[in-house]
Amino acid sequence: MPQLKAIFFDIDDTLYSTSAFAARARRNSVTAMIKAGLRLPHPVVLKELEEVINEFSSNYEHHFDKLLLRVPRRCYEGINPAIIIAAGVVAYHETKFRELTPFSDVLPALRWLVATDLIRGIITAGLEVKQAEKLIRLGIYQFFSPSAIFISDQIGISKPNPKLYQRACSELNISPAEAMYVGDNPISDIDPPNKIGMITVLIRRTRLPGEQAGKYQLLKSRTRPHQVIRDFKGLTAILKKHYGVRPV
Amino acid sequence: MPQLKAIFFDIDDTLYSTSAFAARARRNSVTAMIKAGLRLPHPVVLKELEEVINEFSSNYEHHFDKLLLRVPRRCYEGINPAIIIAAGVVAYHETKFRELTPFSDVLPALRWLVATDLIRGIITAGLEVKQAEKLIRLGIYQFFSPSAIFISDQIGISKPNPKLYQRACSELNISPAEAMYVGDNPISDIDPPNKIGMITVLIRRTRLPGEQAGKYQLLKSRTRPHQVIRDFKGLTAILKKHYGVRPV
Repeated sequence: MPQLKAIFFDIDDTLYSTSAFAARARRNSVTAMIKAGLRLPHPVVLKELEEVINEFSSNYEHHFDKLLLRVPRRCYEGINPAIIIAAGVVAYHETKFRELTPFSDVLPALRWLVATDLIRGIITAGLEVKQAEKLIRLGIYQFFSPSAIFISDQIGISKPNPKLYQRACSELNISPAEAMYVGDNPISDIDPPNKIGMITVLIRRTRLPGEQAGKYQLLKSRTRPHQVIRDFKGLTAILKKHYGVRPV
Repeated sequence: MPQLKAIFFDIDDTLYSTSAFAARARRNSVTAMIKAGLRLPHPVVLKELEEVINEFSSNYEHHFDKLLLRVPRRCYEGINPAIIIAAGVVAYHETKFRELTPFSDVLPALRWLVATDLIRGIITAGLEVKQAEKLIRLGIYQFFSPSAIFISDQIGISKPNPKLYQRACSELNISPAEAMYVGDNPISDIDPPNKIGMITVLIRRTRLPGEQAGKYQLLKSRTRPHQVIRDFKGLTAILKKHYGVRPV
């Protein structure tokens, strides 16, 4: 039985539903902008916002400003555009404040992991404070080993470069064969850690009725994950059965 | 009796207690940063944060990053600094989400004003979306005439330049003598609008037991305000008595 020393997680759509949350936050923002005086139908504004996000990336900071630039000026004539923009921003943040929670199976698994002697880490691609903020808002940062959180923006290496995973292992003085990575994206979460010899777990959550297929449901990795799970119950089961992980 | 057509308000420390709110938000942020692993006493961190804000202005966006640069690295050794920074940011925003409310006398006065035929406006110095966000979060933007919100950053003219006040009046096609300005800062809220012939009202709120004197309690304008009030009850009294303002 291989000796496992560390388990690393992806954040987005692995620990919480980034896609579902973002969709809700965008809808709420559009509703608030219309309430603040933007005279356009909800579906039209939502579509425009989605185009802005696609064109300027989700980490761009002025989506709502750009949105107003794109619609005819008469749609908010007589209203200070800063009010409409601020209404969108506030609604987005309030959704974040109220609704950012981990998948229901995540907390029990993290609580169980804390009682084991595994290092619990994060390897995530994104902006430094934005990714850290997710761990804080999800109320889960205290479950991770404080020196095992790796954010691409802080390291200068991003997914899908295998060096990002290599760096996490070497910083903690463990060999990749002693480390597991759990993520939802076959291309960036499975192939690169496989390449350096980590143990890889692909999470494919069951979609709820009416929900779209998972973001990466149609992607396929070139190499196979060591394990495929549907949720974190499956993860603890594998850790117990295949890696002999036990509370200490 | 002079014919009043518009009433403009300052935002900060006039419509809500900016000073009390900021102090609370800073305290909460420091508590969160320490909880996230910053190993320094609360008063030390708070003092450092206040120095950062004084040195880099309150509109600077990276106070918590700068704070960490200023303290010895050993105070957060082994902890990803992004986590400590994000903990501070989240605590600040959550204070904003939960605690930003207008002074208790403001809402009744705005409700009364909405029933009159006065234009209700804002003239404020600050960043566009930040000032607009305050009106949204305070839940009061709907009481103002949507075309009467003037934010210095959008206009390129800031307090104490009287041209800011002049611009607000001319945009609305009213003469300064037909417009009232209500603010708490004698230097930037009284002298400049006096200079162009507006009617000025200085608000000097009573301090609560144990509270510091109002931010500008010790400042004195060179010209006298037309009226001095303690709260917005005083404002509606003056509007009724001296300017014949009535619900229509």
